[in-house]
Amino acid sequence: MDNTKKVFREIEADAMLTVSEDLRKYLTGFGSSFGYVYTDAQESIFFTDPRYIEGAKSALKGEFISVEVAQSEASVLEYIKSKKVKKLAVPVNRLTVPNAEILKKFRFKVVDSSPAFEKLMSVKNEEEMSLIRKACEIAEKAYSEFLGFLREGISETESAGYLEYLMRKYGAEDRSFQTIVAFGKNTSVPHHAPDETSLKKGMPVLLDFGCRYKGYCSDMTRTFLFGKGDNAEFCDIYEAVYGAHMRAFENIHSGMTGRAADALARDYLKTKGLDKFFTHSLGHGIGINIHEFPRLSVSSNDVLKDGYVFSVEPGVYFEGKFGIRIEDSVYLENGKVYSFMNTDKKLMTL
Amino acid sequence: MDNTKKVFREIEADAMLTVSEDLRKYLTGFGSSFGYVYTDAQESIFFTDPRYIEGAKSALKGEFISVEVAQSEASVLEYIKSKKVKKLAVPVNRLTVPNAEILKKFRFKVVDSSPAFEKLMSVKNEEEMSLIRKACEIAEKAYSEFLGFLREGISETESAGYLEYLMRKYGAEDRSFQTIVAFGKNTSVPHHAPDETSLKKGMPVLLDFGCRYKGYCSDMTRTFLFGKGDNAEFCDIYEAVYGAHMRAFENIHSGMTGRAADALARDYLKTKGLDKFFTHSLGHGIGINIHEFPRLSVSSNDVLKDGYVFSVEPGVYFEGKFGIRIEDSVYLENGKVYSFMNTDKKLMTL
Repeated sequence: MDNTKKVFREIEADAMLTVSEDLRKYLTGFGSSFGYVYTDAQESIFFTDPRYIEGAKSALKGEFISVEVAQSEASVLEYIKSKKVKKLAVPVNRLTVPNAEILKKFRFKVVDSSPAFEKLMSVKNEEEMSLIRKACEIAEKAYSEFLGFLREGISETESAGYLEYLMRKYGAEDRSFQTIVAFGKNTSVPHHAPDETSLKKGMPVLLDFGCRYKGYCSDMTRTFLFGKGDNAEFCDIYEAVYGAHMRAFENIHSGMTGRAADALARDYLKTKGLDKFFTHSLGHGIGINIHEFPRLSVSSNDVLKDGYVFSVEPGVYFEGKFGIRIEDSVYLENGKVYSFMNTDKKLMTL
Repeated sequence: MDNTKKVFREIEADAMLTVSEDLRKYLTGFGSSFGYVYTDAQESIFFTDPRYIEGAKSALKGEFISVEVAQSEASVLEYIKSKKVKKLAVPVNRLTVPNAEILKKFRFKVVDSSPAFEKLMSVKNEEEMSLIRKACEIAEKAYSEFLGFLREGISETESAGYLEYLMRKYGAEDRSFQTIVAFGKNTSVPHHAPDETSLKKGMPVLLDFGCRYKGYCSDMTRTFLFGKGDNAEFCDIYEAVYGAHMRAFENIHSGMTGRAADALARDYLKTKGLDKFFTHSLGHGIGINIHEFPRLSVSSNDVLKDGYVFSVEPGVYFEGKFGIRIEDSVYLENGKVYSFMNTDKKLMTL
């Protein structure tokens, strides 16, 4: 069964309208910056503009999607109206007030399609798994070559640009998010934006990066030392984060909650007195989006299932000193967790 | 007067709440992924999370902005409620339905702050002009070096990655949008996503790219030939697009509408029988956002003013054959238009 039918079956509405690029990509298998997917019990139509018609026709998945030119948003809504649709499902958490008012003018009763997308997109099929695996392979290959590029005096921003370049050289469509490169005390900011800080001997280096391959994302973080320095404290704490990562990685299983998964790492860090420095959550779902369902956090009731792909990324941060995060993209199969990544997670001194 | 006061003076409300990153950057001069700016007639407060407090305190512009930790969105709204605010201004075109419902629960009467931001952000001050100028300089320097990197067999996506890398090497924070690199017939797609297509002798090459420097964007497009081929038709049409670009560039002036500016290029192309292949608009405002007010298009009533920064980018596209676009980032001063760019616009054969 195609994704359009699967999502439609989950919602209680006469029809469904999907505009967001990521959700359209899931429904149609085709990525485009502009389009509307209309679905009811009888048909599914991809409305787009003339420049995408040819590409869409050859790429569309599913048995019953056809392609039409969208003259305007109004023309798409007129079409829906002409089909006597009363209850229309859209992802309400993304609906803006002006767009809601347009739907109101057409007298549609709005139903939320977000939960259905969330539920279905989180379980990856074999093809999706292989695309994510490829995105992980490319990221790792780029990382491995990138280590030879790092040198004293180089800036974070130039480094980030080069790592992104290497991922594209090895076949990525693009980065999956803005690469984080942090040197020295900048590593203590979990989402540091690369700046002109330059690399010096003995500094910790944190790289958080990933790429997109045929629409699917990878995500990975490594922290290491650029040459030896006065790093005894760093090395001790690295061991603890590595322990927390491995504890979570080896014990996460299908059927547990995101909260229980998060606790594996958090409780381990607690035994080291480090849990209060673990200021973010353990992980997030990965797929067409770099952040999607499920969440692995202290407050998450999401139940982990076979076919889920997510990050495992414990980290601890000491303001003005350093931060350490170790992250793999992983998946659940037959109840157990496996990593897409082969890069060593033990402390490295470059 | 600082930007916060300027925007607040334009709206009719007791207070104003600003969450979007680009608008917060305009109000405070400080870029951060998370925050709330609250403004009323007496005070302006930047609520953010602990990791930004230090940076925000030292970077905030304006006389009367203070920094507070935001415990949660609810705590910010409680604060606003405690100040007896009834009419609250937010950018309504970005407000989602769930967020609108939260504001409703707090019984705020919502007023739209978008027009005020649009009006004020479009006129750049001296500092903003110099940041955009620098973003343009970096893009041009990277472009110039990039030409030496292009070689037969290289893919579009690797090329795009390398051009982005060079912009960061020369000091850009990041790209200002996803770089377009198109080879051969891919140039006929105005927003082509770089793919594995490889470069061959005689192909046209289209590069549309720009970077961000201290939060401000540049935008530039060049189309050229990679070696000589059977390019007589391409050369003729290039001349026409060049003519249209120069016609617009030399005649745009303050006080004219976006529609009149667009017509300068469009009417010129009409004399060559090419106007129907000019399938997009002439240009768009550039600033903190890569696309902002004003629009230069067939339907735009926006009146161009001194201090506006925008793109001038006529283009024509022949499906399955080739496309040509020539774009500079320009500005209006003393009624006249000037380019930020120095790169030659005549046809180049590499």
